[in-house]
Amino acid sequence: MREEPGEDSRRNSKRELRRQAIIDTSAHVFAQRGYHATGVMELCAANDLGKGALYYYIGSKEELLAAIHDRVMDEVMLGADRVAEAGGPPSAQLARLGEELLDVIHRYPDHVWVFLHEFPALTGGRAEQFRRRRREYEGRVEAVLRAGVDSGEFRDIDPWLTARAWLGMHNYTYLWLKPGGRLSARSVAKPFADIFMRGISTPTKPGPAGVKAPSSRRR
Amino acid sequence: MREEPGEDSRRNSKRELRRQAIIDTSAHVFAQRGYHATGVMELCAANDLGKGALYYYIGSKEELLAAIHDRVMDEVMLGADRVAEAGGPPSAQLARLGEELLDVIHRYPDHVWVFLHEFPALTGGRAEQFRRRRREYEGRVEAVLRAGVDSGEFRDIDPWLTARAWLGMHNYTYLWLKPGGRLSARSVAKPFADIFMRGISTPTKPGPAGVKAPSSRRR
Repeated sequence: MREEPGEDSRRNSKRELRRQAIIDTSAHVFAQRGYHATGVMELCAANDLGKGALYYYIGSKEELLAAIHDRVMDEVMLGADRVAEAGGPPSAQLARLGEELLDVIHRYPDHVWVFLHEFPALTGGRAEQFRRRRREYEGRVEAVLRAGVDSGEFRDIDPWLTARAWLGMHNYTYLWLKPGGRLSARSVAKPFADIFMRGISTPTKPGPAGVKAPSSRRR
Repeated sequence: MREEPGEDSRRNSKRELRRQAIIDTSAHVFAQRGYHATGVMELCAANDLGKGALYYYIGSKEELLAAIHDRVMDEVMLGADRVAEAGGPPSAQLARLGEELLDVIHRYPDHVWVFLHEFPALTGGRAEQFRRRRREYEGRVEAVLRAGVDSGEFRDIDPWLTARAWLGMHNYTYLWLKPGGRLSARSVAKPFADIFMRGISTPTKPGPAGVKAPSSRRR
């Protein structure tokens, strides 16, 4: 008997919801105990699933780890897309990139912990895909910095090195920026952007104000 | 028969040298494979020692992990002591703290990797000692920032939050600042200090110049 057209997608979306819940629960377990120290039986217990069911939803422990990484990267790239779509001067884009990134770190503390601690455990194609997506995001940050240098809004900084300074400053908040904590993502993003924008702005135009300079692209 | 006075200390220093070599070799193994995934037999093989000899020098796997942490913290605190001893305006002290920190990260990539990834594996008194030393260093950074605000050299930033921005920016270099790499510790420390000092300097005195303002301590 042929199924109704909607039934497949309903079943798929139900499976996908369950899958996402397993990813979230397992991220918490990995963040607490470490990826290597966590056995499949512990993952089964935490998710209230048998071994067969866990593999049905996830495939393998490493696939689960990759899914946790993807969950972070999906959110981070969505944020970067929103920033690119909104456009505006590079200083405003960089400030919004910071808000978006800290928002992900604040909302997904377990996933980000696993992401930043366990990425070397990914192998083969999964490691390659992770590196590619990570490079893509880093490239977005570098591009905004380069655009700011080109437009004269930023001084003549090295986009690659400056992106690393910016990424370190923001990523490292995962150690203390937690849901329910004293600080919100926004209350950290604002002073961080203040420091960074003053730090890289062209001296004659201090502060993070979004005044657009006439474009004078260097060739 | 009573030993010559020098014999004990010679034996101790020889043992200490061997112990340090074991710590360094094991840091490399942990950095490659992860602390939990590394067995005692692998540590024995890497150090060319039997199980009994390894325990004679180190005590336990966790003690080895603590020793790796101490190795990093010893170096980091020595650097902070040199900075405090040299004194000078807070901007100069902060720049030198950055140089010293990046120098440790650059010289001890394996130890720092283990330090930043595996610190949650320390338990009990060892975890407490590690937290205490880490807090002590963070307190040094905060104190320099506070002194700069008090003297008017820095604008009215939050020393705690600003210290986290500074620590993230510098600590996170462990991912790409490697011995033999394209960049030296100093060639990174300088542009990082430029960004940070412009970022927190009082607007009327831009740049990281060490011009000492007349002290106008706020009470």
